[in-house]
Amino acid sequence: MFGLVLGVLFATTATVVSSSPPPHPLDPLSPVELTAVRSAVLASPLVPDRPINFHYVGLDEPDKGDVLSHAYSSHGRQPTLPRRAFVVARAGGQTHELRVDVSNASAATVLSHNVHHGAGFPRFTVDEQVAAALLPYKYPPFLESVRRHGLDVGDVTCGLFPSGWFGGGGGTAKPTRARLAKLQCFVTTAASVNLDARPVEGITLVVDLDKMAIVGYKDRVVVPVPQAEGTDYRAETVGPPFNGPAVAPGVVVQPHGTGVHIDGRIVRWANWEFHVGFDMRSSTIISLASVHDADAGRRRQVLYRGFVSEIFVPYMDPEEEWYFHTFMDAGEYGIGVSSLPLQPGSDCPANAVFMDAYHTGADGKPVKAKNVICVFERYAGEVAWRHTEATLPGPMITEVRPDVTLVVRTVVSAGNYDYIFDWEFKTVGSIKCVVSLSGILEMKATSYTHVDQIKEDTHGTLLAANTVGVYHDHFITYHLDLDVDGTNNSFLKNTINRMRNTGNPATGGANTPRKSYWTVNREVAEREEDGQINVNGAPAELLFVNPGKTTKVGNEVGYRLIPAGATATSLLSDDDYPQRRASYTKKQVWVTPYNKSEKWVTGLYAEQSTGDDNLAAWSRKNRSIKDKDIVLWYTVGLHHIPYQEDFPVMPTVSSTFELRPSNFFERNPLIRMRPPNANSPNCSCHV
Amino acid sequence: MFGLVLGVLFATTATVVSSSPPPHPLDPLSPVELTAVRSAVLASPLVPDRPINFHYVGLDEPDKGDVLSHAYSSHGRQPTLPRRAFVVARAGGQTHELRVDVSNASAATVLSHNVHHGAGFPRFTVDEQVAAALLPYKYPPFLESVRRHGLDVGDVTCGLFPSGWFGGGGGTAKPTRARLAKLQCFVTTAASVNLDARPVEGITLVVDLDKMAIVGYKDRVVVPVPQAEGTDYRAETVGPPFNGPAVAPGVVVQPHGTGVHIDGRIVRWANWEFHVGFDMRSSTIISLASVHDADAGRRRQVLYRGFVSEIFVPYMDPEEEWYFHTFMDAGEYGIGVSSLPLQPGSDCPANAVFMDAYHTGADGKPVKAKNVICVFERYAGEVAWRHTEATLPGPMITEVRPDVTLVVRTVVSAGNYDYIFDWEFKTVGSIKCVVSLSGILEMKATSYTHVDQIKEDTHGTLLAANTVGVYHDHFITYHLDLDVDGTNNSFLKNTINRMRNTGNPATGGANTPRKSYWTVNREVAEREEDGQINVNGAPAELLFVNPGKTTKVGNEVGYRLIPAGATATSLLSDDDYPQRRASYTKKQVWVTPYNKSEKWVTGLYAEQSTGDDNLAAWSRKNRSIKDKDIVLWYTVGLHHIPYQEDFPVMPTVSSTFELRPSNFFERNPLIRMRPPNANSPNCSCHV
Repeated sequence: MFGLVLGVLFATTATVVSSSPPPHPLDPLSPVELTAVRSAVLASPLVPDRPINFHYVGLDEPDKGDVLSHAYSSHGRQPTLPRRAFVVARAGGQTHELRVDVSNASAATVLSHNVHHGAGFPRFTVDEQVAAALLPYKYPPFLESVRRHGLDVGDVTCGLFPSGWFGGGGGTAKPTRARLAKLQCFVTTAASVNLDARPVEGITLVVDLDKMAIVGYKDRVVVPVPQAEGTDYRAETVGPPFNGPAVAPGVVVQPHGTGVHIDGRIVRWANWEFHVGFDMRSSTIISLASVHDADAGRRRQVLYRGFVSEIFVPYMDPEEEWYFHTFMDAGEYGIGVSSLPLQPGSDCPANAVFMDAYHTGADGKPVKAKNVICVFERYAGEVAWRHTEATLPGPMITEVRPDVTLVVRTVVSAGNYDYIFDWEFKTVGSIKCVVSLSGILEMKATSYTHVDQIKEDTHGTLLAANTVGVYHDHFITYHLDLDVDGTNNSFLKNTINRMRNTGNPATGGANTPRKSYWTVNREVAEREEDGQINVNGAPAELLFVNPGKTTKVGNEVGYRLIPAGATATSLLSDDDYPQRRASYTKKQVWVTPYNKSEKWVTGLYAEQSTGDDNLAAWSRKNRSIKDKDIVLWYTVGLHHIPYQEDFPVMPTVSSTFELRPSNFFERNPLIRMRPPNANSPNCSCHV
Repeated sequence: MFGLVLGVLFATTATVVSSSPPPHPLDPLSPVELTAVRSAVLASPLVPDRPINFHYVGLDEPDKGDVLSHAYSSHGRQPTLPRRAFVVARAGGQTHELRVDVSNASAATVLSHNVHHGAGFPRFTVDEQVAAALLPYKYPPFLESVRRHGLDVGDVTCGLFPSGWFGGGGGTAKPTRARLAKLQCFVTTAASVNLDARPVEGITLVVDLDKMAIVGYKDRVVVPVPQAEGTDYRAETVGPPFNGPAVAPGVVVQPHGTGVHIDGRIVRWANWEFHVGFDMRSSTIISLASVHDADAGRRRQVLYRGFVSEIFVPYMDPEEEWYFHTFMDAGEYGIGVSSLPLQPGSDCPANAVFMDAYHTGADGKPVKAKNVICVFERYAGEVAWRHTEATLPGPMITEVRPDVTLVVRTVVSAGNYDYIFDWEFKTVGSIKCVVSLSGILEMKATSYTHVDQIKEDTHGTLLAANTVGVYHDHFITYHLDLDVDGTNNSFLKNTINRMRNTGNPATGGANTPRKSYWTVNREVAEREEDGQINVNGAPAELLFVNPGKTTKVGNEVGYRLIPAGATATSLLSDDDYPQRRASYTKKQVWVTPYNKSEKWVTGLYAEQSTGDDNLAAWSRKNRSIKDKDIVLWYTVGLHHIPYQEDFPVMPTVSSTFELRPSNFFERNPLIRMRPPNANSPNCSCHV
């Protein structure tokens, strides 16, 4: 997929020109580097057509072995690694892939070039989304429809929707290779900015994005646009009075200052160290996460690279205006591009620090994304461990260690939805991923004003008069390149199985009246098909272990995956087009051998993808995954039945999973955590 | 079960003698009332035998209708309701049940008396646990064994274990009716107070609790006691140095003071109001939880009464010393009695307020349990709702409402385990229950020092030399008497089912290339068997709805149950004795018609219970549950495979479920929450 490597020599890597310290090998491309990439591409004879639109520019990270050497070599000079960009650009109706060396930003060099001939297209640029959304205003049949629907064209806003793939090219039945997308429109007025609550139901336009022209149009049915009243969510329009629930304001104060130390994009906190990257497509990337083992006196590897690879959101209405609503937010829009500034004091608490990022416009120029990541210590009143011993003579023993965690947060506003992504690091060694959903539902206009009127399937919930919140799913897939205490790991499925008490000690039984118990059977995954797990099946614990490393008593060191709800799998039929594109969504867990190019669960080109380049397609090779550098793919899944509380803006719903050390440490790593200096008469924790 | 009502007239209820305000009808019995109850029982000719041991004394709450009238009658004088106690006492080898009226504490009256003739016994008193634990020191065969095991009797501590029920009476094969329990012993020295880590494996004693004498003894095998080193968890013994993970201290400051208003045991906070009760058996009880609906301008009922009904913990080792380890902590010990003082600043944050409680000793005298409940506003940096709208012309719109919640916390130290129980109230209308497990594992001594030596099933994980953490389950069952906007509710199972696109609008299809989608099928539970659900089965949403109340657009008002992991069900075979006693553990969800006597999921007499009086037994009547006052029973279930990190004290593992309004409100109840006065340049939330 990364195509033909041209006979261009690598630029030497010793000539980084910068007034600031040299970047970390996994730092996102800086504005200087992005500018250099753009210049190199524009200057290259390999892409003669104009205009050139930059759909993706991201770090082409150095080889993993080199990065690991850089990060964990304890002595000697760290090697200087090349700085390279991977670019996907459209020009002359073709998709170009380029690798550009920017080790020397004043002499950036195109290393390779390839024209993509397979299925699918890169993400929409913001510029073309804007340009396309303006086309209807100059399209007479649309203007006529707007009048027919009784609307003022000045109140109508349109948005670009991917057409999906339904057996041909461009979302049609014909196997064309055009970049066809759809436009649908909404009413907004001063009374309400909630466009999703006020769809102009029945109208769909088809746009050819390369020609930037409307090539299809349908005004199928007139449905009343829901009223504006009650749909807005801005404080200035809904109140005063603010008679909703009132809580006392509260602020976390850290009397001895912060415990977070940030050096460039390296974060050090408590026993953790990791790098915070960023990408146009995947947003925040956590890399090189390692945990200090106080007993062993050394840092130990946990996660080489973790990020959200895709958010797949299929809607469950087969109607003309809805059947193609099968979004792949990362691949079709870019969730990095959709990561917008966080609000200090409300998106993140007062003790948060913020980080910026950069992506590129269609013209290839860097775009600053300010405050898109925040990092804060979370004081949620939790307990790390405790015990009260009341059974011994003498004073009661009570030992409690309060829990503080570190959160790295990004908010992705993927159109109507807002996803709050937290990477939460725990002193116990866990990484907890939290995804919280808020924002606005996609709503469908209907003539119904009361559920008693409804006779057939409306494919959603009547939320308000003339307003249906359409059923849909969310499948959020994490790429988790775990390296548990080293790169070579195995994936274990430890099944929990009922046993009958045989009475025979040789088979684990005993001569007692107990009839049954359970035990654990260890299954090592040999090949990819062994690593594909539906976690809603028979009980099992799923671990990444390092078969080359054991504890003193001989347990393999490991981390285990702990799902915690939100384990829905796709209910679409296997032959349905959206399901073919996201065929990995029938199992929450997949394990693959590490392959640098396998980052995007929906493939490099998710827009109009056909499923020929996704996680399930790669895994059909059924490669060996035992004692190898392996990657965990985990999908958080939710079936979303809307309720009236989700209107006009949704209260947050959160889902989590945890990666937890499991025989990784010799013992509870918090046993030697300093106790709080509590002044309680019952506290035996004074020292 | 509550037996013969004697011909004693109810004391008049207008003569409450108290210098403090009259108690709330659901307030736990006060020390004055408990003392009066004791006097009345001791003075009663109905229980002539001596001594009388009080195993349970709790509030016999007024009839639900009366309590509801008291709580929700908006005008006129609140009725004064009787104050009554329910007592279970042992005397003369019999289990006595008494109801005592203490409306006039200076003239308490026994209202009814019954002798229990069925299976099972009340919980162990603390006094008899202490007395029994001392018996081995005067039992020569035990002293001889201690020598044979190479131990110093001064280092040995014994504890009382329920013998369970295995087909007869008293945990033996004989159908006796003796209160037989078991004693097992542990080594503690100055070097380590971690008794669970140092079992004297192989020795089991049987004690007759009524005779308070050892009636059985077995010293089956000598196994090395694990060494003390590395087992202690007290700060004073493990450090300094405290070289574990160090975090910056942090304190929540509330510049405008607390938002919590406590009046007696009524807590008012934000849009919530509820009563915090307490019981010897179930610990904290949340009652009369209602939420203010700002749009409707009124308080609306949500939860009449919620509490932890049982914690069932079966171990998975069939051996002689382990097969009967099938604990029912509430029924056998009392988790209220096991609720110990919380540590300010570590068990609960600095902004917490504390509440006391009372239970009774075996002599019936009140015992103060100080600081056993804390209430605090939780500032965890979460977001209640947000949206950034970037698709409209003009400045970007960002509206964010930070989330603050209210936590009511209790910690139950059930012997080795510490359960942190949180009731978390959310402004969105949710009640989230969180159970966090910490404390000490039950460990088994073994001759193994390395996993390579192990050939057969050890029924656990080798955690350290000579130490196996034994496999076990936790089943924590909540009694949740939801009254969604009134007492009469129905239970809905809304199944999520795949549909094939027929192309026919009459059946919900459409003439589009989409082949499949899902829809929701509503199933109203008619009878109890319809309300027994394994939540790991086919996807469905489970709701309590009020069929008599709809929103303006006609949706039934409801609350839904959202499990979030920890949905394990029991793997024991149906014919196994522990499973018969806890036969409800194969489904997480049960729904029963309200019945005041059905509080205890393992029956009123859990100790040596046989399963004839538990949730499953009651539900065999298969009563109607449609449009009735119904109760939800939800069991949080975990299979616990120990890992080395759980040694010598376990880092907290948390599990949650949520009761969330679902078409209960007309819209998002937080839409009119006051926005934060943020000073961000990107914030459009100033007003």
